[in-house]
Amino acid sequence: MRVKVRDLENGKERWEPFDQLMIATGAVPIRPDLPGSDAEGIYGVNTLQSGIEVRRIVDQEKPKRVVIIGGGYIGLEMAEAFILRGMDVSLVESSSEVMNTLDSDMGNLVSEALMCVGVKLFREETAEGFETDNGKVKAVITDKRSMPADMVILGMGVRPNSSLAENAGIPLGVKGAIKVNERMQTEVEGIWSAGDCVESYHIVSRKPFYVALGTVANKQGRIAGINIGGGYKTFPGVVGTAVSKICAVEVARTGLQEKEIHRLGLEFVTAKIKSHTRARYYPDAGPITVKVLAEKGSGRFLGGQIVGIEGAAKRIDVLATALHAGFTLDQMIHLDLSYAPPYSPVWDPVLIAVRMAMKQL
Amino acid sequence: MRVKVRDLENGKERWEPFDQLMIATGAVPIRPDLPGSDAEGIYGVNTLQSGIEVRRIVDQEKPKRVVIIGGGYIGLEMAEAFILRGMDVSLVESSSEVMNTLDSDMGNLVSEALMCVGVKLFREETAEGFETDNGKVKAVITDKRSMPADMVILGMGVRPNSSLAENAGIPLGVKGAIKVNERMQTEVEGIWSAGDCVESYHIVSRKPFYVALGTVANKQGRIAGINIGGGYKTFPGVVGTAVSKICAVEVARTGLQEKEIHRLGLEFVTAKIKSHTRARYYPDAGPITVKVLAEKGSGRFLGGQIVGIEGAAKRIDVLATALHAGFTLDQMIHLDLSYAPPYSPVWDPVLIAVRMAMKQL
Repeated sequence: MRVKVRDLENGKERWEPFDQLMIATGAVPIRPDLPGSDAEGIYGVNTLQSGIEVRRIVDQEKPKRVVIIGGGYIGLEMAEAFILRGMDVSLVESSSEVMNTLDSDMGNLVSEALMCVGVKLFREETAEGFETDNGKVKAVITDKRSMPADMVILGMGVRPNSSLAENAGIPLGVKGAIKVNERMQTEVEGIWSAGDCVESYHIVSRKPFYVALGTVANKQGRIAGINIGGGYKTFPGVVGTAVSKICAVEVARTGLQEKEIHRLGLEFVTAKIKSHTRARYYPDAGPITVKVLAEKGSGRFLGGQIVGIEGAAKRIDVLATALHAGFTLDQMIHLDLSYAPPYSPVWDPVLIAVRMAMKQL
Repeated sequence: MRVKVRDLENGKERWEPFDQLMIATGAVPIRPDLPGSDAEGIYGVNTLQSGIEVRRIVDQEKPKRVVIIGGGYIGLEMAEAFILRGMDVSLVESSSEVMNTLDSDMGNLVSEALMCVGVKLFREETAEGFETDNGKVKAVITDKRSMPADMVILGMGVRPNSSLAENAGIPLGVKGAIKVNERMQTEVEGIWSAGDCVESYHIVSRKPFYVALGTVANKQGRIAGINIGGGYKTFPGVVGTAVSKICAVEVARTGLQEKEIHRLGLEFVTAKIKSHTRARYYPDAGPITVKVLAEKGSGRFLGGQIVGIEGAAKRIDVLATALHAGFTLDQMIHLDLSYAPPYSPVWDPVLIAVRMAMKQL
């Protein structure tokens, strides 16, 4: 088999023969097809180079007003960076709350955290275009207003960069991601793929799933490499863990959220509790909210979400591990988690939430 | 059935009838039977009252030189408290390293942390008696020297306070702890027990085990209460999780350590890795050392130990959850743990350790 390669320095193309081919084309940021969206001053922050460019502009041109479109991880993290630099930050989010991979009650805590640090938040508002002046962005036009902007950040998510694979006739799956088996083989013999361009398997929903995260990409790449090198390893899939922060507020999620469970046609119970990151009397103890979701009847644990101050988010890993184990709430309630006053209340907040959810079964 | 009760205020005794009896007598600190050990100025810090008393003495009498006997959790935590108050702190530990619930290579990191914060550490040294002056402690005599002391703290561990049960003919188990079944029933019908006075079941060693920790006691008490009240719940046992800290250094362990695995006659592999608590380039990223132990051949995960700066210790909960699940290393390597630069390197340190241990199988 052969693949056509273009030398980006001199533009020359050639056909390169191969026995095994690895496609690791990653993802591309979703850019809205809106009037003015290719104006200067509008950035998708998806590569190291684009991050460096945004930083250079901020340092040199000192834009005052920045509008961020989209309240996902990138939106949140950019909002934090700009707030810390004293800029005027507006964030436009089309959903009812930011972080729509959380249920809206938990997303609301993140929305409030954004407003607390000074971000002007516009929820249920959609960007419809950009006003420009001499090819440079001047304002973001939404369905409700015009927002003056010296700089615009697109945080609207990514889609798999799978056009090369598609053009070669390699089958695609959910959201246009390349279909691979557990060994990271595409459906074409000798062609492998991994990372942000491939479909993953969701261990909790038991369905194909698309996730673009460095940690998953890294693990998949290792599996592909071992198999291409003649070894044998499989990648079991993901449980949908992700984590972010906005200044002092940590945000984490794993498993399925309410709307995903609805879509599967399952019934579920939830519990949401407020507790403390450390023993209540210990210095720097602070709030943590934990929500857990479990299947009605069986009690099978389906997912969890955490919002809180320092020490809150990494607790999601216990819930992620429980999802890998296929635990029911009953199997989780006595998990022998660590306790000492600097680290946790006697019952870790995640276990308090599990206990409360059991009462709903 | 009846139980004899003494009114501590007026000394009167009476026989109290019962249908169900709960024994929750807790633990008592181990006090060495050494010359002078009942002198004034020697404290076992095992009750709230004794903690308050030590604090009062420190505030009012301002002792300068304190000697701590024993380098377990209590020893470490008291050392931290005294160092923060600017006192001269010596710690005597009979083993080769403090924290002997860790393997000595990991315990060594804790010993070094103690010395770094200014504790004078005397390892492989045994207290043999106390010099006193007018009934007040003046010095600790070890097998190697005499250490002047204005105050002495005993951190030599606890033993179950099971004499009441023993005298009533209730069978005891390991270390003299009261034997109970999974419902927290003793071997005598109608008599229940929970907490630091009972034997637990160790899920990894599959043997009876004695552990005196508030978190376990609290969970067991809940189970006993539900069963006494006519409900039905069982306590599955523990995996030996514990956590402590000395100033900036966090210490955690779960499962079996090397000497426990030896005692079971199992063969094992280990891996110990150094990594970072956050992405290496992220502010406040710092060192974390993780050790994992797994059964040779099967790859069954047996235990883990962590020493590192803020953010290190709570990661032990992932390993504890994996022990509850009975995971092999192979089942752990792809755990979908959270990643973002403020929280973790791309591969969480616990997974790096798992990966390294797999290479030893």
